[in-house]
Amino acid sequence: MTDFSDAALIIIDVQKAIDAPYHAAEGPRNNLGPEANIARLLSVWRRQGRRVIHVRHNSTFPTSAYAQGQSGNDFKDEASPLAGETVVAKTVNSAFIGTDLERLLRQAGVSRLVIAGVVTNNSVEATVRMAGNLGFEVHLVEDACFTFARCDFDGRLRSAEEVNAMSLANLDGEYARVVRVGDVVA
Amino acid sequence: MTDFSDAALIIIDVQKAIDAPYHAAEGPRNNLGPEANIARLLSVWRRQGRRVIHVRHNSTFPTSAYAQGQSGNDFKDEASPLAGETVVAKTVNSAFIGTDLERLLRQAGVSRLVIAGVVTNNSVEATVRMAGNLGFEVHLVEDACFTFARCDFDGRLRSAEEVNAMSLANLDGEYARVVRVGDVVA
Repeated sequence: MTDFSDAALIIIDVQKAIDAPYHAAEGPRNNLGPEANIARLLSVWRRQGRRVIHVRHNSTFPTSAYAQGQSGNDFKDEASPLAGETVVAKTVNSAFIGTDLERLLRQAGVSRLVIAGVVTNNSVEATVRMAGNLGFEVHLVEDACFTFARCDFDGRLRSAEEVNAMSLANLDGEYARVVRVGDVVA
Repeated sequence: MTDFSDAALIIIDVQKAIDAPYHAAEGPRNNLGPEANIARLLSVWRRQGRRVIHVRHNSTFPTSAYAQGQSGNDFKDEASPLAGETVVAKTVNSAFIGTDLERLLRQAGVSRLVIAGVVTNNSVEATVRMAGNLGFEVHLVEDACFTFARCDFDGRLRSAEEVNAMSLANLDGEYARVVRVGDVVA
């Protein structure tokens, strides 16, 4: 069994903006459990005094619900940082680009990461791919992530479940180990 | 029309190893045109004296056909570097991690990239996501890339065409512009 006592929990982009209707323009998200599961992860990490890192997306597109100054930029209630917890602000998809996330983890001697957030196939996948390639041992919590339906490049509408399952397949065993919240907080 | 005269052409992992049967264990690749299209891109870039960068994957897994010392580590004929062309060796999926690719591009003042190679949803996607997030203007040549069939994380077998189309959808408009070889060599 993996020992998560020294693992950093990284929560990606769980801000109110993700509920903006335009994200679901091609179809709905894949499930409603992730917010509660993220709260559960945070609760365990906090109770054990483990390292928590909140990644906040500050979109540079003025029309984005994630833009600074928009109410959507605020964290969702279930994922709000407590005083003293680290918040890493980013402006692109990967939390490792244009931020000091890698330095912060190296300096703290962290090698094991537990990652959750939104959306699976965009900022989560970009961050997990980099984390794995940078040599971190990454555990991606599939039931603490979600995404939205979208058309593939050939114009076929894919449900959020399909988009999510393809993203997880790209990541599992290659960049990360895909786990469930029960595996991590057991 | 985009001016490609100052664009670097980056060819990813087009080595003999990609023909090893295990890559197609879950089903065949999606098309047979990419090698010829890569040769066409290289021919134009060389004729115009533009910058060409070959990315070579040196797998650290001894059983990989891409491992150093294996014949599969050699470039495919259509993608073989000429004397004097830059070869960037990597050991992980992204060509930007553990290499000097970013420094090399910055020092040369390159901001526009044309990317092709294999496989679309793995090393190509990992590299394109990072290139876009690092601020490069990326043109991904879809008919100079390919991938293989695989099961998604829910166990549904996806054809190489489906895997490819989902990967391109993740990238297009977010990390890169997906183009065809005719758009780039016109």
